[in-house]
Amino acid sequence: MFFASDNTGPVHPAIMDALTLANAGYAMPYGADAMMDKVREQIREVFEAPEAAVYLVSTGTAANSLILATLAQPWDTIFCSPVAHIHEDECNAPEFFTGGAKLTLVNAPNAKINPDKLRRKIEAEETRGVHGPQRGPLSITQVTERGTVYTVEEITTLCGIAKSYGMPTHLDGARFANALVTLGCTPAEMTWKAGIDAVSFGGTKNGCMGVEAVIFFDPKHAWEFELRRKRGAHLPSKNRYLAAQMSAYLTSNLWLETARAANAATARLAEGVKQTEGAAFLYEPQANIIFAGWPRAAHQRLHDAGAQYHIMEGQLEGDNPDEILTARLVCDWSASDENIDQFLALLKG
Amino acid sequence: MFFASDNTGPVHPAIMDALTLANAGYAMPYGADAMMDKVREQIREVFEAPEAAVYLVSTGTAANSLILATLAQPWDTIFCSPVAHIHEDECNAPEFFTGGAKLTLVNAPNAKINPDKLRRKIEAEETRGVHGPQRGPLSITQVTERGTVYTVEEITTLCGIAKSYGMPTHLDGARFANALVTLGCTPAEMTWKAGIDAVSFGGTKNGCMGVEAVIFFDPKHAWEFELRRKRGAHLPSKNRYLAAQMSAYLTSNLWLETARAANAATARLAEGVKQTEGAAFLYEPQANIIFAGWPRAAHQRLHDAGAQYHIMEGQLEGDNPDEILTARLVCDWSASDENIDQFLALLKG
Amino acid sequence: MFFASDNTGPVHPAIMDALTLANAGYAMPYGADAMMDKVREQIREVFEAPEAAVYLVSTGTAANSLILATLAQPWDTIFCSPVAHIHEDECNAPEFFTGGAKLTLVNAPNAKINPDKLRRKIEAEETRGVHGPQRGPLSITQVTERGTVYTVEEITTLCGIAKSYGMPTHLDGARFANALVTLGCTPAEMTWKAGIDAVSFGGTKNGCMGVEAVIFFDPKHAWEFELRRKRGAHLPSKNRYLAAQMSAYLTSNLWLETARAANAATARLAEGVKQTEGAAFLYEPQANIIFAGWPRAAHQRLHDAGAQYHIMEGQLEGDNPDEILTARLVCDWSASDENIDQFLALLKG
Amino acid sequence: MFFASDNTGPVHPAIMDALTLANAGYAMPYGADAMMDKVREQIREVFEAPEAAVYLVSTGTAANSLILATLAQPWDTIFCSPVAHIHEDECNAPEFFTGGAKLTLVNAPNAKINPDKLRRKIEAEETRGVHGPQRGPLSITQVTERGTVYTVEEITTLCGIAKSYGMPTHLDGARFANALVTLGCTPAEMTWKAGIDAVSFGGTKNGCMGVEAVIFFDPKHAWEFELRRKRGAHLPSKNRYLAAQMSAYLTSNLWLETARAANAATARLAEGVKQTEGAAFLYEPQANIIFAGWPRAAHQRLHDAGAQYHIMEGQLEGDNPDEILTARLVCDWSASDENIDQFLALLKG
Repeated sequence: MFFASDNTGPVHPAIMDALTLANAGYAMPYGADAMMDKVREQIREVFEAPEAAVYLVSTGTAANSLILATLAQPWDTIFCSPVAHIHEDECNAPEFFTGGAKLTLVNAPNAKINPDKLRRKIEAEETRGVHGPQRGPLSITQVTERGTVYTVEEITTLCGIAKSYGMPTHLDGARFANALVTLGCTPAEMTWKAGIDAVSFGGTKNGCMGVEAVIFFDPKHAWEFELRRKRGAHLPSKNRYLAAQMSAYLTSNLWLETARAANAATARLAEGVKQTEGAAFLYEPQANIIFAGWPRAAHQRLHDAGAQYHIMEGQLEGDNPDEILTARLVCDWSASDENIDQFLALLKG
Repeated sequence: MFFASDNTGPVHPAIMDALTLANAGYAMPYGADAMMDKVREQIREVFEAPEAAVYLVSTGTAANSLILATLAQPWDTIFCSPVAHIHEDECNAPEFFTGGAKLTLVNAPNAKINPDKLRRKIEAEETRGVHGPQRGPLSITQVTERGTVYTVEEITTLCGIAKSYGMPTHLDGARFANALVTLGCTPAEMTWKAGIDAVSFGGTKNGCMGVEAVIFFDPKHAWEFELRRKRGAHLPSKNRYLAAQMSAYLTSNLWLETARAANAATARLAEGVKQTEGAAFLYEPQANIIFAGWPRAAHQRLHDAGAQYHIMEGQLEGDNPDEILTARLVCDWSASDENIDQFLALLKG
Repeated sequence: MFFASDNTGPVHPAIMDALTLANAGYAMPYGADAMMDKVREQIREVFEAPEAAVYLVSTGTAANSLILATLAQPWDTIFCSPVAHIHEDECNAPEFFTGGAKLTLVNAPNAKINPDKLRRKIEAEETRGVHGPQRGPLSITQVTERGTVYTVEEITTLCGIAKSYGMPTHLDGARFANALVTLGCTPAEMTWKAGIDAVSFGGTKNGCMGVEAVIFFDPKHAWEFELRRKRGAHLPSKNRYLAAQMSAYLTSNLWLETARAANAATARLAEGVKQTEGAAFLYEPQANIIFAGWPRAAHQRLHDAGAQYHIMEGQLEGDNPDEILTARLVCDWSASDENIDQFLALLKG
Repeated sequence: MFFASDNTGPVHPAIMDALTLANAGYAMPYGADAMMDKVREQIREVFEAPEAAVYLVSTGTAANSLILATLAQPWDTIFCSPVAHIHEDECNAPEFFTGGAKLTLVNAPNAKINPDKLRRKIEAEETRGVHGPQRGPLSITQVTERGTVYTVEEITTLCGIAKSYGMPTHLDGARFANALVTLGCTPAEMTWKAGIDAVSFGGTKNGCMGVEAVIFFDPKHAWEFELRRKRGAHLPSKNRYLAAQMSAYLTSNLWLETARAANAATARLAEGVKQTEGAAFLYEPQANIIFAGWPRAAHQRLHDAGAQYHIMEGQLEGDNPDEILTARLVCDWSASDENIDQFLALLKG
């Protein structure tokens, strides 16, 4: 019963096989390997973006921070939601990589940035000339940190606002595949066709060992990104093993298969929560993350049985067994029905 | 005939097996996995350093830069050799991670820092009070970038000088194992017993897929390093796969076995070069790197036959077949006698 | 009728005289001048802080940023109000000087930080371990950016909260003297006795040419600050001319005299605004800044007559003469009754 | 007998008068004052550069660091001499403001960069692609830190080399006027006509209180510089007092008059040193700085009589009265013949 994160499960066997296959003979280092050429072509095809600049890094924070540093000046402010991973969970990495850019938090009900509030915040940053921060990129997360999913229209609206102010746009797609499966659209529709300039395309949370693709639809950013990546110590010498993961991930739609599995497991779990008296969602679960509250007593039962997940609000210790504590549950591709049903049985008590 | 670098060869099968073994069930993310506990104990034992703080990162530049940022203040200068990897090959990563520290280059014949020159440079940095950079860490590379190896006494002397000025010390051990095999001493003797405070302990170039250990002998640096690592986007969520590599690397002396293989291959190659008329070493090859010069015509033969290595000085294209060009040759654990002999046959013409 | 800022007026004659007096013969550069020794003693005496480390810089942003960089780590977050000068008016200077620290905005009615909200925000920053920013300094502004003044008790409460979490505290005292005159307390009471660790002690807005003192009550910060100041290019070679200003400013209570003049002028202006039908304060003016709204038609009259001040909300151009636009009015020591009365006459129409 | 630096003497009376004159009524802050408009026009006229972007800052380190940060990327290396002020005397400010650029030291006999060595160093930075630092600006100092002066031809040659590699060029003109007086050329000839892109135009060392002009001949750098200046806390609110200094400095050729006085005083001093037995120049004094050696006994006599200057090599304390110690002597505009002659009398003993 492991629902703490989608980074605690095992690597998909097809990825492991690809690593073994890649482990033959010599390969040029630092991204000059043949497998990287293949990955570049795969991503360009998947995204219908024949000009895109494509790179691999080993962590999502690296993908986000290096992209934002390429899109933002140090005197800019980056617009994001108050619960954005780049704001809450990267220990100031965006500030570090950008050389001190600021993050402006925009009201985001359900973790989705509100367009009117975005426009208002952007306007507010223009009243002080050289004194205030300048308008930098818009960064949105898809799937959001609360498990909701922007529609293509919503992304288009937000990017349209950003573009009307000349601002670049970034999509933190640590759970890109999970969102795509939910929306049933194409990668192009969810990104550049909607106005996104650069994507952190996640692999790690969805069955890979540790690889994220960086995609710039405009290749003008390529050389600066390469320098920033190297200077950030994120250029792996044995790049072929990152490339092997990403290539296998994109082969035969493995990435969509694992995302579908994760989303389906989450749906099963959510359905059970929904039918549990005293349990309620904080956000509508649309991909592979659930935020739900239920009484402390039920948390205690789950905890005692070894269930692993984060309690976001409230504390397990306490006098009132009826007090509602908020849980965050995440399913990865390997979550089993058996585990889910066991969890739900304990939840219902 | 691949002698371009020790990062172009395959991962050792025992490392691959360990990755497969680690790929079972769930594991806590971000270094809280059980395998990481094991690695920590293994390194503490290998280094006879029961208090050491131990971390894993995926690139050597990350290990170096994050350690130096922990040891240096932004207004310091780091003392290193003019051919130090941190100076020449990291695209200003040390400057980036330290927030703008300077690197002071100290004369280093054979790529080994000269103690008198070190003392003189340190003294020179103390004449300007608040105006000049302040004295920061000493950083030495073992095996050096020219294939030479410091003796334990030489390390002790350099660290002694640094310590006499209150300066911390760092050892860039991207090829730590190769040096240890050459010296036949213990890891403790080559490091903390000689005065080293922090080590970049390489795995990647010696048979791993992509893992370097960071070792601080004084655990007071631990928490700051953890924050710097996260902020540098170098904390892997699925840390278990880094830990699995490092653990296998240290098990049954695999790391020494692969280093011995690389050094032995290099010795065979060096012996052949030595016996080749018109060929000469620029530095005495003491581990797994050779710098040697020979006529352009021989380079041309090798190149035409597909041999891969870097020409450091001179250019393959040119009118004079007798002109001496300098080659850098590096052997990894997988270099075969057959390849070496084929190379030597071509060299001799 | 110049009410745009307290940095648009002339330097007080006594400061000019002091500059002339200081301009004789030779003086040691970089703060080693005798006048600097005197300033240090004067500030220590005024603040009843015989151990304090004291420095001079030429801008308020320099004082704030260099102090915050000394008190904060790059992975920290600084707690301040949403309208703090360090957040809105320094073009990311705090982020730059700290190496990428974040600013956490705490709800601040009347621009004064609410203690409960502060506590809640501090608590919220402790749930993510190495992933989130760490707790850094609290920074408060006195006089606030909206013209209100913290009581000594309020400062004590806020600092007490910060201290209970081990956080250092900074007071942006660009208008320190104006606040002190309002409160009628001692400098010590408004700072270290209330729990403040470091002060940006303003001179520029209150009659000086361009000088701010940096005060650390604990001298342990001294050497780091000196290095940061030099590295920030804020160590003036001819420091004697900064010292001369600050010394004259503190002599014979000139600083309190000029602040009293500014506050009295503001009170006269505020009284007139108060008695104007259709005009209303947004915040209670407690020192030398007024935020008030009145109809566009009155703004137009004032503007046509050459009155200078900032319109903070709303725009002079518009169809509705009755629409209320917000003005910010600031008086410096040189504001004349004549000008104020002329302004009020125009306001009343 | 004050020869320690040209920043220890008094401000020229004409500058003081200008400050008094500027101190009337209100003036727009942050560089929007009318006096700044005048300064801009004066500099454009003096430099025959009608398009130039012109700014004022209060320290030479600010001018240098902010210009270099505008011209260099964080992954670049800046080419300068080993004794450059930006390398030795700014406590890593260039590294700080650029976000971690490196400084490559180029052999510079007499403190003047050798063109062949420059070309060789530039070439050496191009062998490592993304791994090494990239080619950034060339920065030269005129008057050099050793008191020598580049000819216009020498500057043209160095800039020509930089330009042939697409590198921008910076002139640290802390002693610009002193050099101009030596060469007898025009400001344009010594700068943009010779290939210089940006100038730190010094006022502080030559009779001002604390002001340096930043000049970009191509105004495309203007807005970025303004943001960097504000973010670096170097935008003075009361800019009029910087502008008043610079304007007076450029009026009626005051700047050339003070430089001529300083150079003439230095020539008188140098002539005396030259005629002193046992004394010898290390570099030919060409402007207002002398490096000369003479026996310890003579230093002792001077020291006992209160003469102030820096001993660069060797120490006053020592057993051997005949040992040669190197002195650095600098004259400012106010150095008197009487003081010089007194100094020379003591020197000769």
